[in-house]
Amino acid sequence: MEKNGFKMFCPVESYSGEVILLGHGSGGTLTAKLLNDYVFSAFGNEFLDKKHDGAIFQANGRMAFSTDSYVVSPIFFPGGNIGDLAVNGTINDLAMCGAMPKYLSLSFILEEGLPIEEFTCVIQSIRQAAIEAGVSIITGDTKVVEKGKGDRIFINTSGLGEVHPAADIDVNRIKTGDRIIINGNIASHGISVMSLREGLEFETSIVSDTTNLNYLIFDLLEAFGSDVKLLRDPTRGGVSSVLNEIAGQLQTEILIDQRSLPIAEEVESACEMLGLDPLYIANEGLFICFIAEPSAEAALEFIRRDPKGKNAALIGRVGGAVGKGRVVMESRIGGKRIINSLPGEQLPRIC
Amino acid sequence: MEKNGFKMFCPVESYSGEVILLGHGSGGTLTAKLLNDYVFSAFGNEFLDKKHDGAIFQANGRMAFSTDSYVVSPIFFPGGNIGDLAVNGTINDLAMCGAMPKYLSLSFILEEGLPIEEFTCVIQSIRQAAIEAGVSIITGDTKVVEKGKGDRIFINTSGLGEVHPAADIDVNRIKTGDRIIINGNIASHGISVMSLREGLEFETSIVSDTTNLNYLIFDLLEAFGSDVKLLRDPTRGGVSSVLNEIAGQLQTEILIDQRSLPIAEEVESACEMLGLDPLYIANEGLFICFIAEPSAEAALEFIRRDPKGKNAALIGRVGGAVGKGRVVMESRIGGKRIINSLPGEQLPRIC
Repeated sequence: MEKNGFKMFCPVESYSGEVILLGHGSGGTLTAKLLNDYVFSAFGNEFLDKKHDGAIFQANGRMAFSTDSYVVSPIFFPGGNIGDLAVNGTINDLAMCGAMPKYLSLSFILEEGLPIEEFTCVIQSIRQAAIEAGVSIITGDTKVVEKGKGDRIFINTSGLGEVHPAADIDVNRIKTGDRIIINGNIASHGISVMSLREGLEFETSIVSDTTNLNYLIFDLLEAFGSDVKLLRDPTRGGVSSVLNEIAGQLQTEILIDQRSLPIAEEVESACEMLGLDPLYIANEGLFICFIAEPSAEAALEFIRRDPKGKNAALIGRVGGAVGKGRVVMESRIGGKRIINSLPGEQLPRIC
Repeated sequence: MEKNGFKMFCPVESYSGEVILLGHGSGGTLTAKLLNDYVFSAFGNEFLDKKHDGAIFQANGRMAFSTDSYVVSPIFFPGGNIGDLAVNGTINDLAMCGAMPKYLSLSFILEEGLPIEEFTCVIQSIRQAAIEAGVSIITGDTKVVEKGKGDRIFINTSGLGEVHPAADIDVNRIKTGDRIIINGNIASHGISVMSLREGLEFETSIVSDTTNLNYLIFDLLEAFGSDVKLLRDPTRGGVSSVLNEIAGQLQTEILIDQRSLPIAEEVESACEMLGLDPLYIANEGLFICFIAEPSAEAALEFIRRDPKGKNAALIGRVGGAVGKGRVVMESRIGGKRIINSLPGEQLPRIC
């Protein structure tokens, strides 16, 4: 469902009164009914159909493995919900390893009393996101906790992907002079959730950027191979936390230019209104790519040709060793300041 | 720590007052500190040391993949805690696929205010259980929810294992006359947690049977190969739910003999006192094996030679097709009754 050009926050229009019960987590008859009625019917495939404790698949070569638990609140937000977020988030973690995602596991912790319509709505979003990303959900689990011991729905997805043969993603391959690309506007996801949570009504429609990045990354690796040295998605903690983590691992300086950082005007205004620094805000459809300098301009053009990279920009470069890692930003008016990692908690439960 | 011959319920003897904060889930400085101080130091390996969004490993052949979220309450119980339970549970799901577990992911949902000593105690149990099972924790995630939106600690583990070359675990290979073996006494885990939760003090010390089964299963497959037709662990919902699920898939009758079902006297007494049927109680160190009749006696002897199988028993056999699946138990006094799957919720949050 759409409203004002973006998906509605809570797409459930009417409730039957049917809710998740503790018995749905018992492992007995009610669990089987829940799975048969809502889960297997949405995701049925040769793996799930076996209804075993796990799934068996054939693997050959380098595989990537990643996991994330999703606790975003509220579970429905402009542009998505916890379901597609949980698929795209893990898909993108695999893509950041240079892998094409193939298989996902799906594990729910449901709160007693969750309306069944909200559960099925999340299931449908998971289904759609999995289809779009080309992955199969091959194993899963469902637990239920008492009312007040959870918060509607928590989801864990773990994923497996096949690493691209040309991928050589390794922080230790980064050298002074390597350039840094980001594929789009920052801070959309965090601000969309935050504004909804705080009951703020912006005139503009800021929507989460949640999406899969696996095809774009695959194409990038096809085209630029090992010139792509590191890929990271700036989710929790935002761009600044990812760059600080890398600078810390490398013990070098990372230099970024505020003027080149892409951000939508309405997001920037919202950040100012909320007193938030967009560099610390979570993104769910972005990646940061460290690339060898000679390929940087071509890679930027390449990424910009993809709809998910149309606002891509070269935002900085790797400086020299300075004894300790740090991120230095040249501001719009030319001054320089050190950008630290997010010190505490700015936006809890953003993913 | 031990007390009365079993591990203490809560092994933390003194609290510093340091607790989990929302900022520990921010993705920024506090998250990095929590991981560096407590997680990477416990599990450090070549995969985790890369501190990337996922781990890359080499795979060749048939792999098993499984996931489970653990929400057991209370988190410390006689014989274990949510940490070793979360490792052993997923390890055993992989073993039930005929696989030797190799890699685990580890994902926490922590409740704000969790004492840091309880977190580190769980971490140490996870570490020990992973070492015992021979698996490496190669990727992970940590989220924090506000006080009252979770319950101390929830854990997801997902696992990968290499399927034994001789394994041909498939419910559809089961035939009339196949025998059913269980490797030990039933109902210990559920009763240990339940008695603690209800504040019941049994004179005897009933402890959870949580343990890994991967080595025993590997040896069984080495010895009996494809004569092993199906392996399942009777966790949530107990023996009856697993057998009903299989009977339903096969559309045949499964016949079990109450006299042969191994159960400790003290557990049976506790079940009577609590008004619980041990057939529905969760187990965490048991497997049920469907095996070709000619190998059944030898397999039983083989399992009994392992300390984790010393109480193993042949508990039943597969009857003929009866139009629909059902489980029929011959009681101690010779009567027959149909054993249904657990209808509702008997023991919530048992794993």
